[in-house]
Amino acid sequence: MNGTKRHEPTIEEFVEGIRNGDRRLLSRAITLVESNRPEHERLAHEILDRCLGDGGNSIRIGVTGAPGAGKSTFIETLGLDILREGQRVAVLAIDPSSARTKGSILGDKSRMEQLAARPEAFIRPSASSGFLGGTAPRTHEAILLCEAAGYDVIIVETVGVGQSEIVVNSMVDFILLLMLPGSGDDLQGIKRGIMEIADLVAVNKADSGRQAIAEISKADFEAALRLLPEKHTGWERNVLLTSALEGSGVSEVWQIVRRFEERMKQNEAWENTRREQLRNLLYTIAEERLKREFYDHQLVRTLQQSIEHQVFEGSLSPFSGALKLLEAFFGEKRSD
Amino acid sequence: MNGTKRHEPTIEEFVEGIRNGDRRLLSRAITLVESNRPEHERLAHEILDRCLGDGGNSIRIGVTGAPGAGKSTFIETLGLDILREGQRVAVLAIDPSSARTKGSILGDKSRMEQLAARPEAFIRPSASSGFLGGTAPRTHEAILLCEAAGYDVIIVETVGVGQSEIVVNSMVDFILLLMLPGSGDDLQGIKRGIMEIADLVAVNKADSGRQAIAEISKADFEAALRLLPEKHTGWERNVLLTSALEGSGVSEVWQIVRRFEERMKQNEAWENTRREQLRNLLYTIAEERLKREFYDHQLVRTLQQSIEHQVFEGSLSPFSGALKLLEAFFGEKRSD
Repeated sequence: MNGTKRHEPTIEEFVEGIRNGDRRLLSRAITLVESNRPEHERLAHEILDRCLGDGGNSIRIGVTGAPGAGKSTFIETLGLDILREGQRVAVLAIDPSSARTKGSILGDKSRMEQLAARPEAFIRPSASSGFLGGTAPRTHEAILLCEAAGYDVIIVETVGVGQSEIVVNSMVDFILLLMLPGSGDDLQGIKRGIMEIADLVAVNKADSGRQAIAEISKADFEAALRLLPEKHTGWERNVLLTSALEGSGVSEVWQIVRRFEERMKQNEAWENTRREQLRNLLYTIAEERLKREFYDHQLVRTLQQSIEHQVFEGSLSPFSGALKLLEAFFGEKRSD
Repeated sequence: MNGTKRHEPTIEEFVEGIRNGDRRLLSRAITLVESNRPEHERLAHEILDRCLGDGGNSIRIGVTGAPGAGKSTFIETLGLDILREGQRVAVLAIDPSSARTKGSILGDKSRMEQLAARPEAFIRPSASSGFLGGTAPRTHEAILLCEAAGYDVIIVETVGVGQSEIVVNSMVDFILLLMLPGSGDDLQGIKRGIMEIADLVAVNKADSGRQAIAEISKADFEAALRLLPEKHTGWERNVLLTSALEGSGVSEVWQIVRRFEERMKQNEAWENTRREQLRNLLYTIAEERLKREFYDHQLVRTLQQSIEHQVFEGSLSPFSGALKLLEAFFGEKRSD
């Protein structure tokens, strides 16, 4: 930022710093995790290898909702509530400048400034919009780093457009869906898809004067939830009214998250979910690198153009073209 | 179905039959394409290799919308309209018994019975719900087979839950989004995601008596479309009122599709899109088989359990675990 070349910390310094709650080093480690440069990747994963095993006791909350549902105000209020209990909070937030929320007229005035000012809180705006594309494993790894840094609660913000929720569902414990009053009268499949993975629905912006319409929405969402299959055995999903602006309902959300944690830890559901998520991360990374090896492969790159051409003109089916590329890839692999 | 062992046609018979419009053989070829059995796959792709180059002159229309938006009635009415022009129509439909439309109370009473009775029409219910998961390439290949069979118009039905539209966008020319009257007052990001890929929006079920509310929805959707970036250069997306039940607006949709085709063929947009789609299919199949090679690999399978275990207990990061699996895969590949 200030033009002087920064001292590059050693792995030791990173690991020690993260463990001791150095937010600047945590942030730089997340930057390494998010980087596509091989040397950053190598460093990031050496840090991760050393940090793991320290964490795992956090609660991870995904907060999702359409643009304008009031996610950042909500997260800030919730975060301040959690700090009051003496817990430390990390937020992986959407960077509004990079998030592709075209058409969102509302803009983001407050980006959790109060929360950001607190030393027990860590806020990391993510350059990826809702963790689409290849960034899901990176987000998951950022969560693991926050855990290694000892944060008790990790909040992951996503834009509620469908895909990102399903992805975030693979790395958090609890998903809170924020809806707006008045949006409940048309519950078709589109929203139901997102509702299926919610553990709690909050009708947010249920501010004074809007309560009547908020109550109607609440009833609508409750009816919709009743039609859905159970997400977790023994957990009934509810709908709450909240107003992050006026502070109402937010601490109730936090109580519900704690109750959820308690309930899931009674049987092995909590542990099983975490295992399934790690398993998922393991294979996502494996597939990601497998594909990279393929596309970076010299012979594959050489053949690509002519195979594409044959496929375009119909002299080769896409299937046979794909087989030719795989033969090139494995043939080379076998002979070297 | 009738218990007697069917004669398995030869590749020659398949290719000839498909070219000559034998719907039974076309249907059996699609079944082969959809099958996971290696011998079916091999046969399917030999058929495809032989059939390609014959087609490519069809118009492919994706019809999407939430459960209850009236997709199948709409497709039937549209299909009958197209037949009246002397064109042949193939429909890749959602099989309502297998589609995961839990919570859809409406059910599917009519599954295009009139259209199905016509010899110039081919209706193929797909076992996959909205082509999620690994079935996108299979659907694309089914489209290619329908083209080889000489169908002029191919309609692909999907449930409007987000993911399937984006997938179908990679294999059709035109996407029609069916909405319901009254659903326009809450246009948040959730719907906008789907609206972004629509070439035309129809407020369906704008039946007599519901026109007032349908008009309001139309205005809402028009406003929403204006906020979105252009999908195709030179094509302005519109909103129509339709009532498939009463037959109104449907032939207008068809005229718009023809106008779209004409417009896109003026520059090279049509051809470019088709190329991009074939390219996409080529690499999707390559990645699919690459992953299969990996997961079927003997040493990978042997190591999996112990690596998962180390990842679960935190003694190995998911990243390092993934690298170990890749080493096993490529090591073996290299040495054999």
